[in-house]
Amino acid sequence: MASQPNGPGYDAMVVAPVAWVVGGRLAPEDDEWAREVAHLHLDASIPSDALAGLEAFSHIEVIFHFHRVSPSAITFGARHPRERQDWPAVGIFAQRGRVRPNRLGVSVCRLLAVADRVLTVQGLDAIDGTPILDIKPVVREFLPRGEVTQPPWMTELMAQYWGD
Amino acid sequence: MASQPNGPGYDAMVVAPVAWVVGGRLAPEDDEWAREVAHLHLDASIPSDALAGLEAFSHIEVIFHFHRVSPSAITFGARHPRERQDWPAVGIFAQRGRVRPNRLGVSVCRLLAVADRVLTVQGLDAIDGTPILDIKPVVREFLPRGEVTQPPWMTELMAQYWGD
Repeated sequence: MASQPNGPGYDAMVVAPVAWVVGGRLAPEDDEWAREVAHLHLDASIPSDALAGLEAFSHIEVIFHFHRVSPSAITFGARHPRERQDWPAVGIFAQRGRVRPNRLGVSVCRLLAVADRVLTVQGLDAIDGTPILDIKPVVREFLPRGEVTQPPWMTELMAQYWGD
Repeated sequence: MASQPNGPGYDAMVVAPVAWVVGGRLAPEDDEWAREVAHLHLDASIPSDALAGLEAFSHIEVIFHFHRVSPSAITFGARHPRERQDWPAVGIFAQRGRVRPNRLGVSVCRLLAVADRVLTVQGLDAIDGTPILDIKPVVREFLPRGEVTQPPWMTELMAQYWGD
């Protein structure tokens, strides 16, 4: 591809669900996700022992597809998050909203239980029926290194997100 | 799909690079990533203002494709991480290694600078030429909530990872 500066040839990549969200919210809402409990059911294509040892971790990171977002809704350029005119217009890569290229979500949640082919999680901000593309353990050493700073508008935006 | 418990119909999803890693390491290595500095070049398909406002964040989260992993190398079931027989055999979802379904990586790194269409980052554990599928700001409120616990083998595995 002409747009790739110095790598090998690359074609579009196809990904497929490894699991599905079952339960939790039926529709996307912006706030108060902390108490939501949902289940992740392994897809039939994945063997059960892919989960072996996961129960030793307190949290998981879930990569998922914002499957309800139409490709035509995706925006790139600067806009005001949640249409708040008092917050700056920022590009899609300075936000974590849904209408983003590739429609990929990444969220951390608590892992409450691992049963055969089913995980029980709390605080996952993904709705019932969401296709999950990967599950990774949260590892302390992979958390941000050094102080995390963010602009004031983001702190305001997050104030009601978890609702606790 | 028969394997989806209760969502709408879903076909395989196609994703495309939004940016590329330029510089840093030429080959994957397991350890001592902390000092690596690399650049992320926006793909030609992405407008520049997708980065507007990102400079106000100290860290970013990068979702990328382990493009050097052959699909035939992907493992699911329980194996010993880094072939260490003294560590437990765990499934791919209890590890963060490369040979995983969908070959998706998620890493947090420091954002050093934002110039026109180019980000400069430190501590990104992805090699030169890696296709990037999404860039998100690291937001404090999305970090793990509550104490993060992990098994001893993971703490041992991570001891040399950053090399500082």
